[in-house]
Amino acid sequence: MKDHWIHNPCPATDSVVREAALRRQAQLTKPAGSLGRLEDLAVSLAAMQGTQQPSLDRVRIAVFVADHGVAARGVSAFPQAVTGEMVKNFAAGGAAISVLAGSLGAELEVINLGTINDPGPLAGVVYSPIAPSTVDFTQVAAMSTEQMEQALLAGAAAVERGLAAGAQLLIGGDMGIGNTTAATALGCALLRQEPMALAGAGTGLDEVGISRKVAVIAEGLVLHRPYLANPLEALRRLGGFEIAALAGFYIRSAQAGLPVLVDGFIATSAALAAVSINPGCRDRLLFAHASAEPGHRFMVDALDARPLLDLGMRLGEGSGAAIALPLLRLACKLHNEMATFAEAAVSGKER
Amino acid sequence: MKDHWIHNPCPATDSVVREAALRRQAQLTKPAGSLGRLEDLAVSLAAMQGTQQPSLDRVRIAVFVADHGVAARGVSAFPQAVTGEMVKNFAAGGAAISVLAGSLGAELEVINLGTINDPGPLAGVVYSPIAPSTVDFTQVAAMSTEQMEQALLAGAAAVERGLAAGAQLLIGGDMGIGNTTAATALGCALLRQEPMALAGAGTGLDEVGISRKVAVIAEGLVLHRPYLANPLEALRRLGGFEIAALAGFYIRSAQAGLPVLVDGFIATSAALAAVSINPGCRDRLLFAHASAEPGHRFMVDALDARPLLDLGMRLGEGSGAAIALPLLRLACKLHNEMATFAEAAVSGKER
Repeated sequence: MKDHWIHNPCPATDSVVREAALRRQAQLTKPAGSLGRLEDLAVSLAAMQGTQQPSLDRVRIAVFVADHGVAARGVSAFPQAVTGEMVKNFAAGGAAISVLAGSLGAELEVINLGTINDPGPLAGVVYSPIAPSTVDFTQVAAMSTEQMEQALLAGAAAVERGLAAGAQLLIGGDMGIGNTTAATALGCALLRQEPMALAGAGTGLDEVGISRKVAVIAEGLVLHRPYLANPLEALRRLGGFEIAALAGFYIRSAQAGLPVLVDGFIATSAALAAVSINPGCRDRLLFAHASAEPGHRFMVDALDARPLLDLGMRLGEGSGAAIALPLLRLACKLHNEMATFAEAAVSGKER
Repeated sequence: MKDHWIHNPCPATDSVVREAALRRQAQLTKPAGSLGRLEDLAVSLAAMQGTQQPSLDRVRIAVFVADHGVAARGVSAFPQAVTGEMVKNFAAGGAAISVLAGSLGAELEVINLGTINDPGPLAGVVYSPIAPSTVDFTQVAAMSTEQMEQALLAGAAAVERGLAAGAQLLIGGDMGIGNTTAATALGCALLRQEPMALAGAGTGLDEVGISRKVAVIAEGLVLHRPYLANPLEALRRLGGFEIAALAGFYIRSAQAGLPVLVDGFIATSAALAAVSINPGCRDRLLFAHASAEPGHRFMVDALDARPLLDLGMRLGEGSGAAIALPLLRLACKLHNEMATFAEAAVSGKER
């Protein structure tokens, strides 16, 4: 795997542009630092995009959908049929991310990587089934090596489509009944944490359900323990098609120099895997929101990230990243369009 | 003052609409509660607007500008001339709130209530000077009764213009060198707190400057203490023209049944005064962001409010409220446009 594309380097962000952007922020007609994190965002986006005029007019959202073998273990509050049903809902425009993408003027594509309840090809859906679902990771690895390769490439292909469309920022989303179980198991493996610490209610489990989920994740960790020090193996054995696709998506985006806004719990587990596999991709990742899922903060801390929003969201689909997008856009507008003290003839600080 | 308009009742929000909005949220294609605070926002806005289809397409921002006598005591990092200079910057479109209003498609009006460095009438500025500035509150009351009346009415008049323009939500902003000192003094009076607990750096004071500010506020509190139990008197003695205008703005907006999105530290001090004067106005107030100014959380706690954002902002001008506006808009869109489980033929929760 040493020659694998996922290990290719990610270009550094532009430090000259960063310094110039910091200087500009200090000249805008406001007390220094008074726009708080919006200033950091504008400076980061300028450095990531390599321009003094960062812009997020063209944003593309890719939602990766897949079913999970481990769902058979009763780890979700919703039946597995929902995954395929939601593909139709995405395509019809009725899902949260459909509404958000429309409101934000962002392009939305849905990538079906394999659903038990397969809706087949649909307008607006990239139909790339790898298998009807992963395998239950308490029995054997969730994916074969070939399946994970397909999933990683599906993520990279979505980035290539984004580049072709001129996207200035990408957002990845997820849908898959049972995927908080896979993401939690992956997080436990990468962070060497116990499932009790990271597992949560997902789509709405009660206490008994959470206990069952903890036990199932513990089974998987015991079974695969000898192989989990390798992050790619942890991803293959415990992850899912959509999680591996998101990891490929983040890495390929960073390799292409394109910033990515990371969504919540599932997306962050994929980002953690991506950074574990290729640490250079970290510099192109922005983190949108703190998920209500308790394991999220462990992953966020390990990534040295500080999500922008904390609204108690836990939907997935890229919805939390979409909600945060206007903040990034406004940060850019302020950076680009505010007058300087000199331009506006406003007096500077005196004491 | 018993018959004063500011004591007129505020209509209750619509509890029937609220219940229906809660039922709709439970039917949308997402796990219950998974949109977190966006669900509460949509339900609150539906109840405030009295409609199942809450909308924030038409938003109006009013920025109230005034100078402060207490600025002579060296309580700001910027010279007092900046207040008048910023009026020109607002009018020319170079200030943060100008850029934000343009980006958000919100109407912006600036109300000049009195500046030492008076720019005179300008296009886009409502020119209503009460006096060049308030009086230094360490010497005497900041405003006369007549001046405060004018300021309160200036706030109410901005609401009337908003109603005439068909606004569905109002945002109030502030500009005035020295106004964190006035707002902190007012907060101390209304909350019976010591200035040491509430005072902060404002636009960028160093430690020595903050100590001076604390001492100045303490002087004012001692001078006016016998009168501070009456919130209107506290406002008149310690506040400013723009703070009183914002208090009138919030009360009149609530009386008209129009929701308001409250900005940061200065705006929240005015909201605290407004709620102290007319508690019924609280139900129409939404709180946008947690200011970096340390006194803000004391006021927010007293108002039983939970700001949506925490981005370290401390600019004023209504900028934090403007930044939060897209979240409210997207919350409404999701509420109005997402498919229900029945419409999308998606299976519901099973365990």
